[in-house]
Amino acid sequence: MRSVDLNADLGEGYGPWRMGDDEAMLGIVASANIACGGHAGDPETMFRTLSLACQRGITVGAHPSYPDKENFGRRRLLCEPAEIERFLAAQVGALAAVSTLAGARVKYVKPHGALGNLATVDRPVCEAIVRSVKVVDPGLAMLAISGTLLEHVARDAGMVVFSEVFADRGYTSKGNLVPRGQSGAMIVDPFEATDRMMRFLNSGRMPTADGDEVELKVDSICIHGDSAHAIEMARHLRSALDRGGFTVSPFIAPA
Amino acid sequence: MRSVDLNADLGEGYGPWRMGDDEAMLGIVASANIACGGHAGDPETMFRTLSLACQRGITVGAHPSYPDKENFGRRRLLCEPAEIERFLAAQVGALAAVSTLAGARVKYVKPHGALGNLATVDRPVCEAIVRSVKVVDPGLAMLAISGTLLEHVARDAGMVVFSEVFADRGYTSKGNLVPRGQSGAMIVDPFEATDRMMRFLNSGRMPTADGDEVELKVDSICIHGDSAHAIEMARHLRSALDRGGFTVSPFIAPA
Amino acid sequence: MRSVDLNADLGEGYGPWRMGDDEAMLGIVASANIACGGHAGDPETMFRTLSLACQRGITVGAHPSYPDKENFGRRRLLCEPAEIERFLAAQVGALAAVSTLAGARVKYVKPHGALGNLATVDRPVCEAIVRSVKVVDPGLAMLAISGTLLEHVARDAGMVVFSEVFADRGYTSKGNLVPRGQSGAMIVDPFEATDRMMRFLNSGRMPTADGDEVELKVDSICIHGDSAHAIEMARHLRSALDRGGFTVSPFIAPA
Amino acid sequence: MRSVDLNADLGEGYGPWRMGDDEAMLGIVASANIACGGHAGDPETMFRTLSLACQRGITVGAHPSYPDKENFGRRRLLCEPAEIERFLAAQVGALAAVSTLAGARVKYVKPHGALGNLATVDRPVCEAIVRSVKVVDPGLAMLAISGTLLEHVARDAGMVVFSEVFADRGYTSKGNLVPRGQSGAMIVDPFEATDRMMRFLNSGRMPTADGDEVELKVDSICIHGDSAHAIEMARHLRSALDRGGFTVSPFIAPA
Repeated sequence: MRSVDLNADLGEGYGPWRMGDDEAMLGIVASANIACGGHAGDPETMFRTLSLACQRGITVGAHPSYPDKENFGRRRLLCEPAEIERFLAAQVGALAAVSTLAGARVKYVKPHGALGNLATVDRPVCEAIVRSVKVVDPGLAMLAISGTLLEHVARDAGMVVFSEVFADRGYTSKGNLVPRGQSGAMIVDPFEATDRMMRFLNSGRMPTADGDEVELKVDSICIHGDSAHAIEMARHLRSALDRGGFTVSPFIAPA
Repeated sequence: MRSVDLNADLGEGYGPWRMGDDEAMLGIVASANIACGGHAGDPETMFRTLSLACQRGITVGAHPSYPDKENFGRRRLLCEPAEIERFLAAQVGALAAVSTLAGARVKYVKPHGALGNLATVDRPVCEAIVRSVKVVDPGLAMLAISGTLLEHVARDAGMVVFSEVFADRGYTSKGNLVPRGQSGAMIVDPFEATDRMMRFLNSGRMPTADGDEVELKVDSICIHGDSAHAIEMARHLRSALDRGGFTVSPFIAPA
Repeated sequence: MRSVDLNADLGEGYGPWRMGDDEAMLGIVASANIACGGHAGDPETMFRTLSLACQRGITVGAHPSYPDKENFGRRRLLCEPAEIERFLAAQVGALAAVSTLAGARVKYVKPHGALGNLATVDRPVCEAIVRSVKVVDPGLAMLAISGTLLEHVARDAGMVVFSEVFADRGYTSKGNLVPRGQSGAMIVDPFEATDRMMRFLNSGRMPTADGDEVELKVDSICIHGDSAHAIEMARHLRSALDRGGFTVSPFIAPA
Repeated sequence: MRSVDLNADLGEGYGPWRMGDDEAMLGIVASANIACGGHAGDPETMFRTLSLACQRGITVGAHPSYPDKENFGRRRLLCEPAEIERFLAAQVGALAAVSTLAGARVKYVKPHGALGNLATVDRPVCEAIVRSVKVVDPGLAMLAISGTLLEHVARDAGMVVFSEVFADRGYTSKGNLVPRGQSGAMIVDPFEATDRMMRFLNSGRMPTADGDEVELKVDSICIHGDSAHAIEMARHLRSALDRGGFTVSPFIAPA
């Protein structure tokens, strides 16, 4: 049996608001990236999500971001790497403390949104992310987008690094994500997305938007929880993995 | 030589704003209570204050609060102890992470403002504070108002506890602070405040607002930094301690 | 044909988050209470909701609140009436300006949540609300809970006042709402709620939780949008009104 | 007697924090630009500042900004002109409502910081600013940096426009401000700044950083309140104007 992880962004509510169906998603994934108060999340939301994940034996990671709830961390903020380092440390430190209250333990970090995108190519930002993680817990792993600069910078800094691919995003023949807004950026059909993932997992080669293939390393598949058909796509993929001879298990144990 | 600590609330700015003169105060005190983003503070302000304190060899503690910048944590917020536990853990965890970036190490916790007042008498709140601190670092000490419930609850929970008295606040014959707004609550004259502190330190008995005395334990004297003559009073007291045979040293080493 | 208004709280999202199904509700109600950035809402959310309401010819009112998004304005904040007056004026003034951008015009004000509850009994708070509304536009009407102090204070101050009853809340024999958490506070069954409303509209006497009836004035029926079966209950009631000989029309024209 | 206005940015505190010495500045200037909750300000701070200005007969204007207190509105935020239009309308609408509570009346608008800089050159942003102002009150005037695009766009839209120059900023020979950080950007010596202003007022030609002169229109001189020697420079300039045959009076009456 080969094994692969499924991860999703959870705990992305704020105060009275919810984003997606966390409970359903926790029945499907093996790892949960939890918002830390940057693009979403507050102590109550963090605690509730961490407690649910812990009860189900799901591995939890921190999902820090630009501090920008109104834009959900999707807009780049102009700031120095040193500032990024400080607000990320504060976010991950906050989540780690609340996770202990919830009986969970944060095991990895995955940067969110516009910051995560910048970390695919910007070395000073990657280095700031790595430093901010290490001050909270030098044993934390990094979950990075497969084939991007963050993988290399984190690995060179001695971190354990895991690589993720996206179930619902198109790839270029260079192994990059097709930018949102361009044709082929999003794969909305659950059958198509599942089909592509199974082909990729069985071959190690990701079908690209231009009809080619590209080799990508994979430890985890990211499924988005806030799009319209998120749960449907997640269930579809999970079921195909179960039937296709894959064990869905976390890339790192929950505790 | 007898020794005593002087502590002050620092890092109480936010974004572009400052509160008091942190640099001057860091030349006077031995321990600094650093705001954690609750009543004041943000990652940049935390980092700057922690770095300054670290450079001067000052011991740093966390100064968490109700999350209420607009009221500077001085207003009680209606919430459950479990909520207090979660937002305090998030605040102290954030400060601890940023302190490592700054080369400092948080050694104790002192609750701020309305929450600190509530912790003099409310057992569930004291217990929430203790739990929130332990999840960040079980080795953290508590700095509590001398003679109050928080001292006992923290000690019963196995924490190392230090006791503070206030240089600029009047005391009742029961050893409580005269409530703000009542006659005798504030001591604004630096000579009077210093005189009272020196008498107290030499006798162990605090002169009270009604002309009596009350026995109080003391490890640290709190001097406020945001009142008009704060720095003047602090310098006056510090000078009297130096001349009066006291060493001003922190109740716990900075690292 | 007798006529009655249906109102609902809309625009209660924030940044990327939504609360309830505003588009569905705008197909059912005749008046929309729009969040002003206190318990919910931001300029983008206000504009989007106001534009939708305007397109459908729905009358819009301001729905200001304690400034407390994390608790959705449902928690009482300790503050002076003069402070309430100032933050309410800022909220209503903000919504009024954005409404002009959206081609809509704010016609009335209805206080939200814990502030709305306080305004049923607290005269200084009622007076603060009235003053805050008048500085934005002396022609604004007040939508108040039927039979409460706010009705009288607003009317005595020369405002046009409309009275609302709740489709999904139980009443005491004194005409007050059964407090949340008590038995009979919430009516969750759409049939029961609709049945009660129709009996009330035809008789002017509201069936109470203890089996009695109480006379209540009514210009509008409030239907909540954020409960689980909100849209179902709203449709059910709307359909019963249409079939029962009532015209659903706003208590005040949209422009 | 020739007359000229002096304006300063006031009410730039937030919650417990203050920026500069508003009371001293209100004794010097004739017009006060009041923060609206974007880069600074909250209903209490707005009210207090507006009340002080009103008592002294000072004309008040709105000083809206990018919504970014942590960076004091000094950082450009990536957003569409339509978003700018909405948050500016909300800010100016809020201030206008609070000003009525304070007995004052907002008479003009001056955009702050990074937004103000963008409005010197960016037409869609200028148009967004103009639209946002007009929905609050079509009679509001615009206070724009002399010689910049905002002047023209506002005038073309039918607004009354006043032009300001800066007492403490260097000018290029094209009439633009020397960018902060470049040599000659800031004039810190009160004698030099005053001397330059008097020469300019008497000749209509502004001495430039490269030793040349440039013609500039002027209705008002902006003096900054948050720099170290702000009050000293303001008093110096005010005194020179009084002695030099100028009446300091607002470009528009306060009520």
